[in-house]
Amino acid sequence: MTDLQEVLDEIAAEAASVEDCGVVAQYIPELAKVDAKQFGIAVTLPDGTVHSAGDSATGFSIQSVSKVFTLALALGKLGDSVWSSVGREPSGNPFNSIVQLEQEKGRPRNPFINAGAIAVVDLIMAGHQPKEAIGEIIQFIRHLADDDSILIDEHVARSETAHGDRNASLAHFMRSFGNIDHPVDHVLGVYFHQCALVMNCRQLARAGLFLASQGRDPVTGAQVVSEQRARRINAIMLTCGHYDGSGEFAFRVGLPGKSGVGGGILAIAPGKASIAVWSPGLDRVGNSKLGTAALEQLARRMDWSVFGA
Amino acid sequence: MTDLQEVLDEIAAEAASVEDCGVVAQYIPELAKVDAKQFGIAVTLPDGTVHSAGDSATGFSIQSVSKVFTLALALGKLGDSVWSSVGREPSGNPFNSIVQLEQEKGRPRNPFINAGAIAVVDLIMAGHQPKEAIGEIIQFIRHLADDDSILIDEHVARSETAHGDRNASLAHFMRSFGNIDHPVDHVLGVYFHQCALVMNCRQLARAGLFLASQGRDPVTGAQVVSEQRARRINAIMLTCGHYDGSGEFAFRVGLPGKSGVGGGILAIAPGKASIAVWSPGLDRVGNSKLGTAALEQLARRMDWSVFGA
Amino acid sequence: MTDLQEVLDEIAAEAASVEDCGVVAQYIPELAKVDAKQFGIAVTLPDGTVHSAGDSATGFSIQSVSKVFTLALALGKLGDSVWSSVGREPSGNPFNSIVQLEQEKGRPRNPFINAGAIAVVDLIMAGHQPKEAIGEIIQFIRHLADDDSILIDEHVARSETAHGDRNASLAHFMRSFGNIDHPVDHVLGVYFHQCALVMNCRQLARAGLFLASQGRDPVTGAQVVSEQRARRINAIMLTCGHYDGSGEFAFRVGLPGKSGVGGGILAIAPGKASIAVWSPGLDRVGNSKLGTAALEQLARRMDWSVFGA
Amino acid sequence: MTDLQEVLDEIAAEAASVEDCGVVAQYIPELAKVDAKQFGIAVTLPDGTVHSAGDSATGFSIQSVSKVFTLALALGKLGDSVWSSVGREPSGNPFNSIVQLEQEKGRPRNPFINAGAIAVVDLIMAGHQPKEAIGEIIQFIRHLADDDSILIDEHVARSETAHGDRNASLAHFMRSFGNIDHPVDHVLGVYFHQCALVMNCRQLARAGLFLASQGRDPVTGAQVVSEQRARRINAIMLTCGHYDGSGEFAFRVGLPGKSGVGGGILAIAPGKASIAVWSPGLDRVGNSKLGTAALEQLARRMDWSVFGA
Repeated sequence: MTDLQEVLDEIAAEAASVEDCGVVAQYIPELAKVDAKQFGIAVTLPDGTVHSAGDSATGFSIQSVSKVFTLALALGKLGDSVWSSVGREPSGNPFNSIVQLEQEKGRPRNPFINAGAIAVVDLIMAGHQPKEAIGEIIQFIRHLADDDSILIDEHVARSETAHGDRNASLAHFMRSFGNIDHPVDHVLGVYFHQCALVMNCRQLARAGLFLASQGRDPVTGAQVVSEQRARRINAIMLTCGHYDGSGEFAFRVGLPGKSGVGGGILAIAPGKASIAVWSPGLDRVGNSKLGTAALEQLARRMDWSVFGA
Repeated sequence: MTDLQEVLDEIAAEAASVEDCGVVAQYIPELAKVDAKQFGIAVTLPDGTVHSAGDSATGFSIQSVSKVFTLALALGKLGDSVWSSVGREPSGNPFNSIVQLEQEKGRPRNPFINAGAIAVVDLIMAGHQPKEAIGEIIQFIRHLADDDSILIDEHVARSETAHGDRNASLAHFMRSFGNIDHPVDHVLGVYFHQCALVMNCRQLARAGLFLASQGRDPVTGAQVVSEQRARRINAIMLTCGHYDGSGEFAFRVGLPGKSGVGGGILAIAPGKASIAVWSPGLDRVGNSKLGTAALEQLARRMDWSVFGA
Repeated sequence: MTDLQEVLDEIAAEAASVEDCGVVAQYIPELAKVDAKQFGIAVTLPDGTVHSAGDSATGFSIQSVSKVFTLALALGKLGDSVWSSVGREPSGNPFNSIVQLEQEKGRPRNPFINAGAIAVVDLIMAGHQPKEAIGEIIQFIRHLADDDSILIDEHVARSETAHGDRNASLAHFMRSFGNIDHPVDHVLGVYFHQCALVMNCRQLARAGLFLASQGRDPVTGAQVVSEQRARRINAIMLTCGHYDGSGEFAFRVGLPGKSGVGGGILAIAPGKASIAVWSPGLDRVGNSKLGTAALEQLARRMDWSVFGA
Repeated sequence: MTDLQEVLDEIAAEAASVEDCGVVAQYIPELAKVDAKQFGIAVTLPDGTVHSAGDSATGFSIQSVSKVFTLALALGKLGDSVWSSVGREPSGNPFNSIVQLEQEKGRPRNPFINAGAIAVVDLIMAGHQPKEAIGEIIQFIRHLADDDSILIDEHVARSETAHGDRNASLAHFMRSFGNIDHPVDHVLGVYFHQCALVMNCRQLARAGLFLASQGRDPVTGAQVVSEQRARRINAIMLTCGHYDGSGEFAFRVGLPGKSGVGGGILAIAPGKASIAVWSPGLDRVGNSKLGTAALEQLARRMDWSVFGA
């Protein structure tokens, strides 16, 4: 039987030796100054045991990986009515594209592109002040990770706000079609805080465990979402989790996954493992370069692809 | 344990009672005159046993389902060089859209939209006359289905040719970018014959069995494609197999699948089953309405989703 | 010789008898409540004489007609450097489309679509507070119209702001590409005030006279812009002045013109006349229905097309 | 008074001294081998006198300039019903774009982009064999130029056919929407012959004279089209005559004009002159670089802009 720890150690060693580890996200100074030469990986198994390697205890900005958790939160609060505000089709376009939003009258294609995640935040905010909504999101993620030490990096949140014109454009665009209810600066305030959550690989893998375990946290026993809903979140991660590189990730890795421009990726092997990997250098479409390669290795060596027997 | 035959019988009975079974494809007369009130389903298990219900022995035009087989054939002949002519990302557009082809300089997004399948045919034709290429495709599919009685409906092929302006437009467009080598009428001649293959659900489920069995035909023992390649074909089926309804199919059914406008769908439960369903009525994006609903039922009741534990 | 006053009287009489006068703009309440059954026309000749008919002394919201004046103002202040922020090609898209802005990296196609006019306002604001910029625009237009009574309707300006999400989206989008320097709410504040200027046909025709007179106000003798610049503004009015109906307006009327969603149109017959027409009902692409028909009549009967001998 | 011949001589001398004369069209070998260092200009006045300079007697492939004549021919044969097959708006896209054709269901934006000109040819062909239609077009142009020696270059026509995939794509696309009646190879056969017409500047300026003279050939006295129709053709030339550089041409030159990738441009100064210029080097959007500069000079020095007094 393949030894998981051994595989992780080898993957981490290999990552350390790679020359071209991609380009760190440049759009906000706080992300641009992160050292590209970092790599961490952690795997949480259904029995709660954790294996890890590399910089798995170093915190990073989870950015768009947070969209998985806000989607789960919104589905829990509002049920399938979420789908009247956002679709579940791959977009065939970059993460911040506005073209399809014009063609489809302000309804984002899926909850994992920026526009879709902003629409999900607007839903979560119903009846809440921005601070309350931020609090609800952070509590939900602490609960999932079973770790109350998880925090938001206010510097990153402020920097996102200062450079947030593209997202403001998306939000105003949707609002002009009536698909955003709250004031744009409130919605973006929450959204930028959600993106600025800091987690390490161990925390992130733990937080995603319910998606590998039929919607249930196998350690605490809490049913986070229904089994069917967990499957469906996995399905959207697989078809839409890597922007316009989703097909490529499915092809190479074969697991549901969600990436962030901070270099993190959460991947789910249903029934087998929740995996978090992090390396700040990105590829052409904005997904972690070493992170994707590591997951490809891991899935192959552990035989975890959902497309295999 | 759930009894598969019982489930299939119930699904077929339910299908027979549905009022709104969608709209039969209208773009060629031969398809338009098919009776919408038909429904068949067949499941082939890795041990080769077959279960079926409804009109599972009635032949139908497999149309775009054939794209799975020509992709496998091209990969077998040319290896990964296929991917220099065609991508593997969902398109976010209808099956016959030309917009993305202009933006991406004649390279189709994936092998399952029309442009991509035409590019694959062009690759298969290398060194062949059209008739030989048609012969090679039909032999490959007969081999997969272990059934030499499978034929092409020449009326359908001719009718496609007579109404083939949209596909001719796609082919000439790619050719203007150098992504089609052979004369357009030759390539389309092969393509339209491939689409005009007639199979019934039992034959189709049998032909897809290698994708559920690590690339190997478990009955004859022939290795059709490598295990990794089988997984990757499944991945593309999941992300791109239902045109601009691929995300929805993954969300509802949770299995790799490929649909055709004749109303057929081939779906793969890796390690568990190859499934063919057929009902001619289509939904808004061109996928079988009752067929999708039947697969949703089947996957849920048999617990076959790739996204579950 | 054709008698101009007679022609105007007949045109106004005809307009009064038309049943279908189009649909009043609905996007802000202040415009939606205007009575569609109004029609005014005024013609100023190079010698300063004015002929008019119908409701030519009734004020209306000039909206996008103001873009002609802010373009002239910006060109006067900044010269041809204006063209590094905005192009001069027809867009082939609706007035508020964001698609081309994404393809062309935040540079609007021309100064007469919304995005382009917002970019022009940003240029005018250099070194100014919003109030000062508004003051400069209103002084410039009063100067052109030789009429200090011209005012801004604050209700309309506020209503535009309250319903300004689409324009905010355009502005943030351009700002994300560095093509807007000032804070978006400042720029939009100025832009919405500019659009809320109230003028009647007599004032508007007078204000446009310099464009019919080689850039010079023939009454006061002031050279507003150079002769070449006047011609070029006319050229842009002809190719871009009616959004995605610009070709149609050139075809039917044959004069440079600029429309606004308030139902006003300014048209220029170089060397012959400056014409303002107003009727609040709009056609499908957002141009005054009766206004266009009136200009078509007038140009034909006075033989004023720039495309004739 | 400005001496026209002197101006032309100076313009030709200046053109001969320019270093960067653009890039000759590369898409067919016959055009690619033309010497870029050629320049001719000819002006025909309403009294029939001709002034010229440079290589004004050298024949060249008129290419898309022919679209002006086929539009006039189609309008003469079919009247305004032409406009049900083709629009009259600038496209905001390159000459051979297919994007807008998909959005607008196969109806080209105007008769001067490739798709529009192909649709016009399809109209002209009604009731004719391809050879007859080619004959009718060549006779019409000989009649306009009052010169029976004008011929088609069969090498160019054949070369266009051999490299005609992009135009074939456009034609099949329109045909799939029912906007082309005849077989695509027939329509393209006529279209490629029309583009392969060889004329020199003197012939071309003469052929366009009716557009500067109220639709009438002032030499022969023949009324080619009505006065109103001549104006309208001029209007379309101004808004759509230079593909996605039409706004720029109107801005710089201020005259209706139609360019071809052979490097020719026909420009009309209504009531004053018909002008043909030719220089094979093209700018970025496919219009003659020196030709445009020459027309800018000429219009400015002769004060011929339609936008001036």
